[in-house]
Amino acid sequence: MTTNESNAGDAGRPLRLHCLCLLIEAPQRLRVAERDAGVPGPGEVLVQVGYGGICGSDLHYFHAGGFGTVRIKRPMILGHEVAGVVKAVAPDVTRVEPGDRVAVNPSRPCGACKYCFEGLPNQCLDMRFYGSAMRDPHVEGAFRNLLVCDAVQCEPVAAGVPLQHAALAEPFSVALHGVQRAGALLGKRVLVSGCGPIGTLAVAAARIHGAAEVTAVDLTDETLAVARAMGAQVTINVASDARWVGRYSADKGHFDVMFECSGNERALRAGLETMRPRGTVVQLGLGGDVSVPQNLIVAKELSLVGSFRFHAEFALAVRLINEGRIDMRPMITAAFPLSRAREAFELASDRKRAMKVLLDFEAAAAQPS
Amino acid sequence: MTTNESNAGDAGRPLRLHCLCLLIEAPQRLRVAERDAGVPGPGEVLVQVGYGGICGSDLHYFHAGGFGTVRIKRPMILGHEVAGVVKAVAPDVTRVEPGDRVAVNPSRPCGACKYCFEGLPNQCLDMRFYGSAMRDPHVEGAFRNLLVCDAVQCEPVAAGVPLQHAALAEPFSVALHGVQRAGALLGKRVLVSGCGPIGTLAVAAARIHGAAEVTAVDLTDETLAVARAMGAQVTINVASDARWVGRYSADKGHFDVMFECSGNERALRAGLETMRPRGTVVQLGLGGDVSVPQNLIVAKELSLVGSFRFHAEFALAVRLINEGRIDMRPMITAAFPLSRAREAFELASDRKRAMKVLLDFEAAAAQPS
Amino acid sequence: MTTNESNAGDAGRPLRLHCLCLLIEAPQRLRVAERDAGVPGPGEVLVQVGYGGICGSDLHYFHAGGFGTVRIKRPMILGHEVAGVVKAVAPDVTRVEPGDRVAVNPSRPCGACKYCFEGLPNQCLDMRFYGSAMRDPHVEGAFRNLLVCDAVQCEPVAAGVPLQHAALAEPFSVALHGVQRAGALLGKRVLVSGCGPIGTLAVAAARIHGAAEVTAVDLTDETLAVARAMGAQVTINVASDARWVGRYSADKGHFDVMFECSGNERALRAGLETMRPRGTVVQLGLGGDVSVPQNLIVAKELSLVGSFRFHAEFALAVRLINEGRIDMRPMITAAFPLSRAREAFELASDRKRAMKVLLDFEAAAAQPS
Amino acid sequence: MTTNESNAGDAGRPLRLHCLCLLIEAPQRLRVAERDAGVPGPGEVLVQVGYGGICGSDLHYFHAGGFGTVRIKRPMILGHEVAGVVKAVAPDVTRVEPGDRVAVNPSRPCGACKYCFEGLPNQCLDMRFYGSAMRDPHVEGAFRNLLVCDAVQCEPVAAGVPLQHAALAEPFSVALHGVQRAGALLGKRVLVSGCGPIGTLAVAAARIHGAAEVTAVDLTDETLAVARAMGAQVTINVASDARWVGRYSADKGHFDVMFECSGNERALRAGLETMRPRGTVVQLGLGGDVSVPQNLIVAKELSLVGSFRFHAEFALAVRLINEGRIDMRPMITAAFPLSRAREAFELASDRKRAMKVLLDFEAAAAQPS
Repeated sequence: MTTNESNAGDAGRPLRLHCLCLLIEAPQRLRVAERDAGVPGPGEVLVQVGYGGICGSDLHYFHAGGFGTVRIKRPMILGHEVAGVVKAVAPDVTRVEPGDRVAVNPSRPCGACKYCFEGLPNQCLDMRFYGSAMRDPHVEGAFRNLLVCDAVQCEPVAAGVPLQHAALAEPFSVALHGVQRAGALLGKRVLVSGCGPIGTLAVAAARIHGAAEVTAVDLTDETLAVARAMGAQVTINVASDARWVGRYSADKGHFDVMFECSGNERALRAGLETMRPRGTVVQLGLGGDVSVPQNLIVAKELSLVGSFRFHAEFALAVRLINEGRIDMRPMITAAFPLSRAREAFELASDRKRAMKVLLDFEAAAAQPS
Repeated sequence: MTTNESNAGDAGRPLRLHCLCLLIEAPQRLRVAERDAGVPGPGEVLVQVGYGGICGSDLHYFHAGGFGTVRIKRPMILGHEVAGVVKAVAPDVTRVEPGDRVAVNPSRPCGACKYCFEGLPNQCLDMRFYGSAMRDPHVEGAFRNLLVCDAVQCEPVAAGVPLQHAALAEPFSVALHGVQRAGALLGKRVLVSGCGPIGTLAVAAARIHGAAEVTAVDLTDETLAVARAMGAQVTINVASDARWVGRYSADKGHFDVMFECSGNERALRAGLETMRPRGTVVQLGLGGDVSVPQNLIVAKELSLVGSFRFHAEFALAVRLINEGRIDMRPMITAAFPLSRAREAFELASDRKRAMKVLLDFEAAAAQPS
Repeated sequence: MTTNESNAGDAGRPLRLHCLCLLIEAPQRLRVAERDAGVPGPGEVLVQVGYGGICGSDLHYFHAGGFGTVRIKRPMILGHEVAGVVKAVAPDVTRVEPGDRVAVNPSRPCGACKYCFEGLPNQCLDMRFYGSAMRDPHVEGAFRNLLVCDAVQCEPVAAGVPLQHAALAEPFSVALHGVQRAGALLGKRVLVSGCGPIGTLAVAAARIHGAAEVTAVDLTDETLAVARAMGAQVTINVASDARWVGRYSADKGHFDVMFECSGNERALRAGLETMRPRGTVVQLGLGGDVSVPQNLIVAKELSLVGSFRFHAEFALAVRLINEGRIDMRPMITAAFPLSRAREAFELASDRKRAMKVLLDFEAAAAQPS
Repeated sequence: MTTNESNAGDAGRPLRLHCLCLLIEAPQRLRVAERDAGVPGPGEVLVQVGYGGICGSDLHYFHAGGFGTVRIKRPMILGHEVAGVVKAVAPDVTRVEPGDRVAVNPSRPCGACKYCFEGLPNQCLDMRFYGSAMRDPHVEGAFRNLLVCDAVQCEPVAAGVPLQHAALAEPFSVALHGVQRAGALLGKRVLVSGCGPIGTLAVAAARIHGAAEVTAVDLTDETLAVARAMGAQVTINVASDARWVGRYSADKGHFDVMFECSGNERALRAGLETMRPRGTVVQLGLGGDVSVPQNLIVAKELSLVGSFRFHAEFALAVRLINEGRIDMRPMITAAFPLSRAREAFELASDRKRAMKVLLDFEAAAAQPS
């Protein structure tokens, strides 16, 4: 099926498709709405979305209408972790073809600003990232059963890989970017602090990148169990084990690298105590203002390094999933049809019960107008 | 004069020398005391100290008895920025000979711990650093007219270089180490925040290391004037120019590298706003707990890197001074005889009036017992 | 003068300008020819070229018709080291204006290939570099009295800086890029091998980037004298001092970084002997196949790193020239009017007599048709 | 069994043990000889060697009496890849105890030279490496059934890990060091050239360090089969597939990192053609003088990086073997009793038939004198 074929009605007029999408209208106000799906223009494709993972930022919009200075000013389609099936492609597209199963990269740098040309597209000055209220008008998200996107956003998913797993390519990319920011990990002792989806995927990413040992800390036994399943050799519930820092701070510290995925001040501070001199803390979690012990950072010459989103890592994430080098099964808690989105968001908000909750868009069939 | 000669009294007994030293006994309590100067053992030399610079940590001991958890528990000789003339050497010493003018490295790593073998002696687990109450018994300092030290601590000072300048080799080493921690600076835009002696020397070090432009910020016009004399192309008094941050934060920021030498939270936070994505902030200033905007560090992927003391940079500092690649004259405010130490410390505490204040030990002549 | 004005004849037809240019037609066959100068299109400017430096590649075309597999297949305008005065700008140009004195960057990456987006425009897959026969049709060079180029190629030259000096921005960029490839040089011991224009400028660049000491080696006393004038502390004529390698190879070697600018096999091999373990050799000189001692590279874990052209360094080069941080006077041997180009090329080919020889285009006045 | 016990004869005299060892006396002249085993001094242990792997350098001594300028001047015990069981320990040893199964690190840096203090003990100026004729007197090797060594040379082998596998810790360390020299590999495309034991283990090491894809090339199908078993996704027999270079050299090349393990000039040159701009070639193979295309290294800005032996990687190698992160089974061709050493060496010399051939020392029982 090509675009021309699929969109040509009897009278030669392009066939318009409607889609169902999930809007956030205000804190706690989700709504499933019908929208025009659009038509693929040059370089574009139409994807029938299969699954979409609910991310921490989706939850922030849901609970609080945003985070920090980022707030929804008008209704916005949520979602940026999706995978689906290509239904149509513009005539000039060769990268994918109808029928291909793909993960969709939600990151669309402008390709024209100075950072794009410096090889830092994740720092693009004109980024359009799905489901983000950072700019106004907001950038609509991908929680919709039909999505028109650029072909270059699509990474083919291997036969046999469930679309549910492919939908996790995006958070896995975030974790892989964090690992890239840390530099070589071969033989290193790694601490992961905060075992939500990003932290748990950082455990796996660190192992794939050669970490000698990965220790994961969190406040919740359930998330630590997932971290263990994803490759952590040691897990510590710091709520019940108050003395863990002391065990790792002899001789100025134990860990070479820390991935701080909680955004929590106490977690960061505890981790700093356990870092070896010249160690690197990659900060992935977002937590507003945090108080850090400047003298400790100076005296041990630690590096605190920010990691933001991803770029080349998206293709790598899909590749690693395709090749079976990461097993996403322990990550997935449940999938809900779009009609039960509220239930899905509430479950996703409960760290004791949920790791990654998905929305299932396949039930919501596309309807020609 | 060799050790044997100098220490041989009429009866062949070693000649004991007394020295005068500056003790901190309690906050605000400085005292000049007489002590046995000691005799150079194997590998050691006797230095007649000429000048000693008063450092921020000396001032912390003077005003508050210490800083953070580091507190004087008993009287301690202050000082770690000294230069003088070799008066005697042990028979096995070849590195220097009597008459040599030298800067004395106050850093004495153990040479046996794991960090010493990893090439990180500044992280030594058993460091003995002059004039420091970090360990107990405290390590006595070098504010004394006669000092027995290891020959390897001595870096020869070139003819024509004033000892006053050589005494600044230590704080210059700290600045050079900070510059090393930043990596290559060629063509980079550098911000120095806090123009005390370390910040001001960081200005010079960044220029020597190829920075394209160095902008210095401080709250005091007088220190900014010295920063300009040391190579800053732009200086900003952030007390009177409240809008400077806005001028440097367009397109996500202007500076590639920041040397934070104030330890001040607001200075750090303002600087972070002006940093380009992937920029590096080298933290040299010590300021206790500071609140940092975690989301900014993450979103711009900044690196906050601690820098502590120095190692190989001491020899480099002396070399650069010897070769005239840095002009220390603008740095030096005044020199006071040991007997006027209190006056010297008070002047050194006044940022409006003082950059680097020295003690002059030459007046305090050594007296054989 | 704007483009519109300058190009509007009486009848409203654009005014065509002729220019004089220097062609290489075959080995040893230089010819001054008249060509249509062209008219600045959008984003473009017209530069009246003042001076152009003769580069090693120009000499290769002159003597041998090229180098390696790169050979002229048809007449080509030579030259890529030029500076001049802006005479006209397209209406959309704001970067420069008529009357500005500028150095012209001869490097024009495509801005669309993968390397351009990775921040490696000097590796562009579709590079158009002035005066190069690497592609066919060849890219015409800048040895012409009138040159239409992109405004972004123009870097303004400060008042008081001679255009002759600005014309050296290009080879200085090559040297600066080499220094960037070496990483931080602060406190490093640097060896520069081969003191032609690139090597001599590498001496200066290494000093600007903080090298502790720069030793230059060459076979010719005259070039070594220039290297000394440009900042080399030690110079060695390896033709007359056969034992220099032995003096620098004790304890596995002396130098941290080497800039190999000769392309000569013996020079490279001698230098490798004098490198410390983990040292870095930046290869700038082009020399075809060379035999290297693999076992030495392995055993001392040396890094041999290629450096090719430049990108951001061009603006940096002009900045450093503008700020007086490099003095180009020792570099310049002579300037010849275009009519004496052959004489200029012959002098430039004599290492004993020439460092950088320039062509003077100012005498060759532009003539309206 | 403690040293005191084991060495106390009836009359309290230390019990002398004899051991059997494998001497190289001249090219092609191997001899099993009896020697005094020695007694563990302070910090030392006695190891009953189980297996010893035959290395390329052992083969060079066997076939040619050495390599390059390194030649045996007198009989020397060969071997440096051994694992065994601790039989006795000096009273001060706590690291291991009798009965422990250990891999023995053959690298003994002096711990006192400048490189040891810079964290580069593999560059030690006074290295004593088992079974090496680099210095004279030669350093005796570890092909002996009883070996007195330092306790710190011993890395405990986990229960269930065959000693034959542990004996491969040493070549695996060499491969891991090469991988460390390459920097982060996450997502990188890796080429391994030369699939002897080092190359084949480099395949595994690169995969463990996160390489996205590993392509192995060699002249022999049999070694390529082992490379595939160790993790290479693509293998190419370059003897039969002459056009492989062309397939990987479009758009300036395909591979980010190459591990050159053959020491062969043609292999290196072919690999250079397939490297992407800014790619890194880690040179592990030793091959004497090789001719390299300087212009290609310059134009693509490649890095050619030497890698020599290992240090911290030995403990890492044992850890990875212990944890089952590498499966050594495909590496091991056969084990021969010491009495059939010549047969073992001949098999080990046949690349078509052998990957790693071991000597079995367990049969050669120690005999008290």
